[in-house]
Amino acid sequence: MMEASRPLDALNNARDKSVIVELKNGKQFIGNLKAFDIHINVVLDNAEERVDGEVKRKLGVVFLRGDTIILISPA
Amino acid sequence: MMEASRPLDALNNARDKSVIVELKNGKQFIGNLKAFDIHINVVLDNAEERVDGEVKRKLGVVFLRGDTIILISPA
Amino acid sequence: MMEASRPLDALNNARDKSVIVELKNGKQFIGNLKAFDIHINVVLDNAEERVDGEVKRKLGVVFLRGDTIILISPA
Amino acid sequence: MMEASRPLDALNNARDKSVIVELKNGKQFIGNLKAFDIHINVVLDNAEERVDGEVKRKLGVVFLRGDTIILISPA
Amino acid sequence: MMEASRPLDALNNARDKSVIVELKNGKQFIGNLKAFDIHINVVLDNAEERVDGEVKRKLGVVFLRGDTIILISPA
Amino acid sequence: MMEASRPLDALNNARDKSVIVELKNGKQFIGNLKAFDIHINVVLDNAEERVDGEVKRKLGVVFLRGDTIILISPA
Amino acid sequence: MMEASRPLDALNNARDKSVIVELKNGKQFIGNLKAFDIHINVVLDNAEERVDGEVKRKLGVVFLRGDTIILISPA
Repeated sequence: MMEASRPLDALNNARDKSVIVELKNGKQFIGNLKAFDIHINVVLDNAEERVDGEVKRKLGVVFLRGDTIILISPA
Repeated sequence: MMEASRPLDALNNARDKSVIVELKNGKQFIGNLKAFDIHINVVLDNAEERVDGEVKRKLGVVFLRGDTIILISPA
Repeated sequence: MMEASRPLDALNNARDKSVIVELKNGKQFIGNLKAFDIHINVVLDNAEERVDGEVKRKLGVVFLRGDTIILISPA
Repeated sequence: MMEASRPLDALNNARDKSVIVELKNGKQFIGNLKAFDIHINVVLDNAEERVDGEVKRKLGVVFLRGDTIILISPA
Repeated sequence: MMEASRPLDALNNARDKSVIVELKNGKQFIGNLKAFDIHINVVLDNAEERVDGEVKRKLGVVFLRGDTIILISPA
Repeated sequence: MMEASRPLDALNNARDKSVIVELKNGKQFIGNLKAFDIHINVVLDNAEERVDGEVKRKLGVVFLRGDTIILISPA
Repeated sequence: MMEASRPLDALNNARDKSVIVELKNGKQFIGNLKAFDIHINVVLDNAEERVDGEVKRKLGVVFLRGDTIILISPA
């Protein structure tokens, strides 16, 4: 996710890599970034929901709607 | 929902399969994904609302408005 | 509302039939689906507001603004 | 407001008639529907704000912004 | 603000007249309506913020962003 | 900010002048209005955040996202 | 971020410089501004989340979705 001049370039650089996604409701999801679009809708693979660093549940593939997302960062 | 390059491709791969849909108000719906659109409006068939893993009610077909949805994942 | 490939097709199949509409504020309205549009603005006829299965009030015709709606399902 | 195939047709049928408008903040306004647009911005004439069926204040003409509206129904 | 067929016509009829503007956060502003646009962004002149009918502060000219506005009515 | 027929004209008249900007979260910023756009994104220079009339912090230049803004008024 | 006539010019002037970004949920992120777009989606490098001036966690690169942002200012 380095040296990007547009925000979506940064997401593109993170494709197929492990990322953390934090939602407006405080939930954290960690998984491999498989897909995203201009709305910041995101698909993670091998995804886990974590609370305070503990795995709360394993979700496998998960689609996260963009307008619920606060941040995306390499995990 | 694997190997998708765009988020909606992932939803397309889940069509006619069982998915869990979680809403901003904390509710969970499980059913077969029959339809979706770019707003992430979703139609489930054989849908159930669940609370803590228990079936709260059976809804049959249900239309869920996209802007209330947080995540969609195979059930 | 069966066999629809797009979410609005499902609403179209429910036209003139009894549906339940649930709003973000927790209110439930039941009535015959007379009209809807792409914003999911909805018009019900013979509409009732219900709380815990009890009729709270009868409204006759009611226009419900789409962005307040969580779900629509056959009643 | 009967026999409308599109939601705005239903509003058009209510033009110059008494309607109740309920807002997201729980307030109710009753008045004659003078105008509306695709955003569901609404103008009422001879409008009153009511709380529990009691008139709280008389407003005369009032413009209500569409995104604050939950429902519109004949009064 | 009488006899308008579109909501913005009603605002246009109120131009240069005293109006009350109520916001989603419960605040009330009273002033002369100098300008508005399709987003219902509004400019008042000789504006006051009032709480329970009392003047809380005088603002002179104030720009109010449309998406914070619930209603506009002649003062 | 006088004699404007469109709301953004009023902002244009305030350019390079001291304004107060109030946000939906209750915060107040005071500074010279350097730039704005149709989303009401705003840039202030020599900006201060104030609470109850007291300076809470000095920010220098600050970009404020439009959808967080309630009002803008000469300071 | 000085002498900008449009808000995004101010962000452009801050590119590759240290900025503070404050979110609607009260969180603060500090890092080098690497990218932004018209939605105010932002990418920071060498980013830290801070609470009351203390570093809460280091994130490296972080994508922040624009609609969660309140303000951006040089750090």
